[in-house]
Amino acid sequence: MIKAGIVGATGYTGSELLRILALHPDVEVSVVTSRSEAGKAVSDRFPHLRAYNDLKFTDPSIKILAECDVVFFATPHGVAQAMMPEFINSGLKVIDLSADFRLKDSDLWAKWYNQPHGCPELIEHAVYGLPEVNRATIKDANLIACPGCYPTAIQLGFLPLLENNLVDTSRLIADAKSGVSGAGRAANVSALLSECADSFKAYGASGHRHSPEIRQGLNGFSESEVSLTFVPHLVPMIRGIEATLYAELTSDLPLEKIQALYEKRYENEPFVDVMPLGSLPETRSVKGSNYCRIALHQQADSNTIIVLSVIDNLVKGASGQAVQNMNLMFGLDEQAGINQVPLMP
Amino acid sequence: MIKAGIVGATGYTGSELLRILALHPDVEVSVVTSRSEAGKAVSDRFPHLRAYNDLKFTDPSIKILAECDVVFFATPHGVAQAMMPEFINSGLKVIDLSADFRLKDSDLWAKWYNQPHGCPELIEHAVYGLPEVNRATIKDANLIACPGCYPTAIQLGFLPLLENNLVDTSRLIADAKSGVSGAGRAANVSALLSECADSFKAYGASGHRHSPEIRQGLNGFSESEVSLTFVPHLVPMIRGIEATLYAELTSDLPLEKIQALYEKRYENEPFVDVMPLGSLPETRSVKGSNYCRIALHQQADSNTIIVLSVIDNLVKGASGQAVQNMNLMFGLDEQAGINQVPLMP
Amino acid sequence: MIKAGIVGATGYTGSELLRILALHPDVEVSVVTSRSEAGKAVSDRFPHLRAYNDLKFTDPSIKILAECDVVFFATPHGVAQAMMPEFINSGLKVIDLSADFRLKDSDLWAKWYNQPHGCPELIEHAVYGLPEVNRATIKDANLIACPGCYPTAIQLGFLPLLENNLVDTSRLIADAKSGVSGAGRAANVSALLSECADSFKAYGASGHRHSPEIRQGLNGFSESEVSLTFVPHLVPMIRGIEATLYAELTSDLPLEKIQALYEKRYENEPFVDVMPLGSLPETRSVKGSNYCRIALHQQADSNTIIVLSVIDNLVKGASGQAVQNMNLMFGLDEQAGINQVPLMP
Amino acid sequence: MIKAGIVGATGYTGSELLRILALHPDVEVSVVTSRSEAGKAVSDRFPHLRAYNDLKFTDPSIKILAECDVVFFATPHGVAQAMMPEFINSGLKVIDLSADFRLKDSDLWAKWYNQPHGCPELIEHAVYGLPEVNRATIKDANLIACPGCYPTAIQLGFLPLLENNLVDTSRLIADAKSGVSGAGRAANVSALLSECADSFKAYGASGHRHSPEIRQGLNGFSESEVSLTFVPHLVPMIRGIEATLYAELTSDLPLEKIQALYEKRYENEPFVDVMPLGSLPETRSVKGSNYCRIALHQQADSNTIIVLSVIDNLVKGASGQAVQNMNLMFGLDEQAGINQVPLMP
Repeated sequence: MIKAGIVGATGYTGSELLRILALHPDVEVSVVTSRSEAGKAVSDRFPHLRAYNDLKFTDPSIKILAECDVVFFATPHGVAQAMMPEFINSGLKVIDLSADFRLKDSDLWAKWYNQPHGCPELIEHAVYGLPEVNRATIKDANLIACPGCYPTAIQLGFLPLLENNLVDTSRLIADAKSGVSGAGRAANVSALLSECADSFKAYGASGHRHSPEIRQGLNGFSESEVSLTFVPHLVPMIRGIEATLYAELTSDLPLEKIQALYEKRYENEPFVDVMPLGSLPETRSVKGSNYCRIALHQQADSNTIIVLSVIDNLVKGASGQAVQNMNLMFGLDEQAGINQVPLMP
Repeated sequence: MIKAGIVGATGYTGSELLRILALHPDVEVSVVTSRSEAGKAVSDRFPHLRAYNDLKFTDPSIKILAECDVVFFATPHGVAQAMMPEFINSGLKVIDLSADFRLKDSDLWAKWYNQPHGCPELIEHAVYGLPEVNRATIKDANLIACPGCYPTAIQLGFLPLLENNLVDTSRLIADAKSGVSGAGRAANVSALLSECADSFKAYGASGHRHSPEIRQGLNGFSESEVSLTFVPHLVPMIRGIEATLYAELTSDLPLEKIQALYEKRYENEPFVDVMPLGSLPETRSVKGSNYCRIALHQQADSNTIIVLSVIDNLVKGASGQAVQNMNLMFGLDEQAGINQVPLMP
Repeated sequence: MIKAGIVGATGYTGSELLRILALHPDVEVSVVTSRSEAGKAVSDRFPHLRAYNDLKFTDPSIKILAECDVVFFATPHGVAQAMMPEFINSGLKVIDLSADFRLKDSDLWAKWYNQPHGCPELIEHAVYGLPEVNRATIKDANLIACPGCYPTAIQLGFLPLLENNLVDTSRLIADAKSGVSGAGRAANVSALLSECADSFKAYGASGHRHSPEIRQGLNGFSESEVSLTFVPHLVPMIRGIEATLYAELTSDLPLEKIQALYEKRYENEPFVDVMPLGSLPETRSVKGSNYCRIALHQQADSNTIIVLSVIDNLVKGASGQAVQNMNLMFGLDEQAGINQVPLMP
Repeated sequence: MIKAGIVGATGYTGSELLRILALHPDVEVSVVTSRSEAGKAVSDRFPHLRAYNDLKFTDPSIKILAECDVVFFATPHGVAQAMMPEFINSGLKVIDLSADFRLKDSDLWAKWYNQPHGCPELIEHAVYGLPEVNRATIKDANLIACPGCYPTAIQLGFLPLLENNLVDTSRLIADAKSGVSGAGRAANVSALLSECADSFKAYGASGHRHSPEIRQGLNGFSESEVSLTFVPHLVPMIRGIEATLYAELTSDLPLEKIQALYEKRYENEPFVDVMPLGSLPETRSVKGSNYCRIALHQQADSNTIIVLSVIDNLVKGASGQAVQNMNLMFGLDEQAGINQVPLMP
């Protein structure tokens, strides 16, 4: 059994890792750290894990974690950076779910996260953990920067359009909507049920931290420079991201041909589902699962292509994708532990 | 007291008219019709109206309704058309909340609503009831076509941009999101709580009935022909519409100047609130009220302007706007009965 | 115009007072205090009040507040106690929405609130602000202890049974359910949407602070000593309380007669609605309004009477009832400002 | 592989069976019937099952279903009765999720379901599928009447109290709350999101169909005749049942001893979790899983014991319990296919 450690397991991505790994056939969680909860039983904090986890939270310590084969960071940005050199030097494989190693430009990182990057020397070393793009390099990596939730849904949605050079990349629009769990488990007034239930709003409309990550990703598979307008919104639901993507077609390929390119691109991807033309993917159709479902639309007399892309922000947008990366890094079945049917209704 | 009749008062726009008119100082609802509920007390069907309404539903009949001063149609499309000539000929003022008289092109109507228009001769006669655009003509009208919910939020959001010729009208995008009450009170599986709670999806992405109405409206105040991509989405909440609008600026006016144009345009509008630059309007900030709140955004290094527009779909998007029209038609205070503070939280 | 001050107006009961008083014909809010928000505009914090309130928050100060005719405390428990003597001595009328003066036994208060009572000398002076029980004394009071939300729904539900000596008071059960706004606007993890949406739970099942208040109230109109089991629950909704009350009938009066006693007891109460026998009151039927709706049930072959009672916890359970008390204290129309139709759907 | 057929798989209990069985190691769903959807692909109706199910719905026919080893009825009441003799005679094992064979008294059934029982001769033959009570007989059964959702939560909650003769059975109270999925997937106005979101209500307060089933079950393990008041409520959430049970202790056993009896009674039950004294089980702690979690409470100076019991109505309350029964009938690991970690948040 592969021994896994989780740093910062009291948030949603941490508890979601615990849920997924509880039934993973090849992995055993052996260390779970939390400064604030050290000494307490995991199942006291997370009653849904009763019978599945009898660990106690411990203080994060390289000494204890070094006995693991893989360590997940489910921490706020800034935490993984500080500890990373020691972890990598000790030969651990690390999967970082935070934003710390996603951007290749440490100045850009510093600008968007309002602090200097704590470990610029390892940025190049980190592999961006989007298996549909970087599967080969993921297999050999020992430091994975797990993509953000919005960036996952949006990159997978745009990918075949850009790879095939089908659209004007100078004015891409991504209007994305997320459930509240994307805001994490911190005690913020704005995430109270009484504040965000039965309401809807845009946020970060003048600029959001995921924008540079998405642009960097899109530029990675686009011939021409990408200009993107990204506006996230808060949906009164727990899990799920829907991204509605708009691009101007420069090609005169009919939609059916573009659909075929999407299907071709993703035919061997276990977790990307290109739905039939005209489908309307619901976030609930991926709830609790690692799937990304995508559908294409075009309106009459319009050369704007509309791509709808849905994921579960805590699974394909975080912990499920982290496990998918782990499976690749350890040569396991890519679907091990994450072959779960979405929960509907 | 002005006597009002409501045809088809068992749906949400009908019951919302009853709620608003219950405390209107100058109006008394005297007839409420419903074929299916004829003979039953309104307050049995709508317990929230106990103490405010002691009427019974009656069968719709021109004879009874003719004793009213104004009749509201809160019916599905197709119903008002059939009865309209008789109503207009009898000298009644009519406010139609349905889609029957919104489109000026009866062929276009027939195409989108899958049936021939039942009363094309009155289309020209009907005034499109968006007071911020047509206040003067509304005052003299006797047939009002109340705007749809999406069209209200989207037109008010784009209006100053188009009137001032600031954007490329060949690629406007309106990504709109609505609460489930927009689907009405009919018994549809897709509107069950178990089907749409805790989920989010686009619908009508290949073309929605409100598109031609919005285009017609935008073209009414745009010099150049408008091309619009409109994608509606379903939000797991009851009331509220948020529209996120994207347009390419052709002007190099700084955002502050555009903000000033918005504020100027709406300074005398009692129900349009241009929020400070960078605001993030929430649908709950207009819940139960007739307000439309608007905010502008622009991201760094981008000439895409982002307009956020929120309304309560049942009030400014339907019954509140209907009452606003009525107030204008009868020379009442425009805010009478709809001067209500939004319900928060 | 009566001048009103609100201490601690950044929470939900405070903002609800602002909403209600904004359109009160006889009252003007002239001071709004908040230590944390001092200097900021009320409408920045509460965009739904834009156009209705142009005040700024100020630091709480007896000097400024003394210019008011009435001061509302919308503060956590413990705050009003500390300031009360000075306020009362200065001749102000005070309506306290917190728990500070509800219990007549200061030791009991100290036990349940884990701190000594800060102003025991004024406890006797305070009038418990349940108009349906204490209307006459409220009119002459200058210190009102507004009832808690659960106590309001439960006392109004049990009242006619106890006044008429119809049930065994040794085993009353109140199974009550509240929306999350009852937990206030503080930043608590347990009130996050992601924590409490799409879930349901009991809390305080071993004993809740409202228990002694309810018992004190029930004993006030019961001949025999009341023993009550009260279990509150958290409902994934914003507003509303439903209480399902169970009592063993000692009388053999048929349910119709008991219904008649309820109707008689409340026939002149503007805000208590005894619904027809067998009705199933929904919390939404009182949303945003000051009503309490009550319905009676009895199952076959059972002498257990079931009383269903619903209120909006922020209105009849807090701010609406506070305004009702104010109206009585100042000789205004009891319904002034709170004659609002519930918002449905 | 065991071949399973599902009759009426378009509702929630049917689709939940499909979800659970998709990954069951020993079972393959080979027939899925639906009159209304015959010929359509299951994954078109249920996109969450894409990649997990490539069947088409067929008309229900004994001929096709007879090739299965086990048939599940996920139909409204009345359907299974009509087809049952033919199924049983053909040697099939049948698990009926409907109410058809739950009541042992066919007259009582006829009274509560407003129609004569269609197959009284098989009632005695049917085994009530509550494994915690009837495990031994379930193993040998060929017709299982799966318990209702409320009855499951309530019986498991009361069981140790009654078996140990600890309470006055003449006045048991079960105040139960269910998510809306309990109302099924039929198109009813009352289950629309706009009708039941952000609201709470009791229903069936004068008598509900599950009452006789619960009483029959409780009497099965109680020495003295049980009298029960059962009031169900509708919670604005999708899945989950919480039952708050009240009983008068006749024993003077301290709560710790009663807790020990609960723990003892359920120590070998894989799906009943007796939580530590004072716990507050949330329905989300069992979401998507087959667990029933139970916690005990007692308030100061009270001899009323309070039992809190939560299940997922679609899993332990329906399809999960059905699979648990199937596992027992076929000698499989009792947890096969239903060893799933609850989905939180």
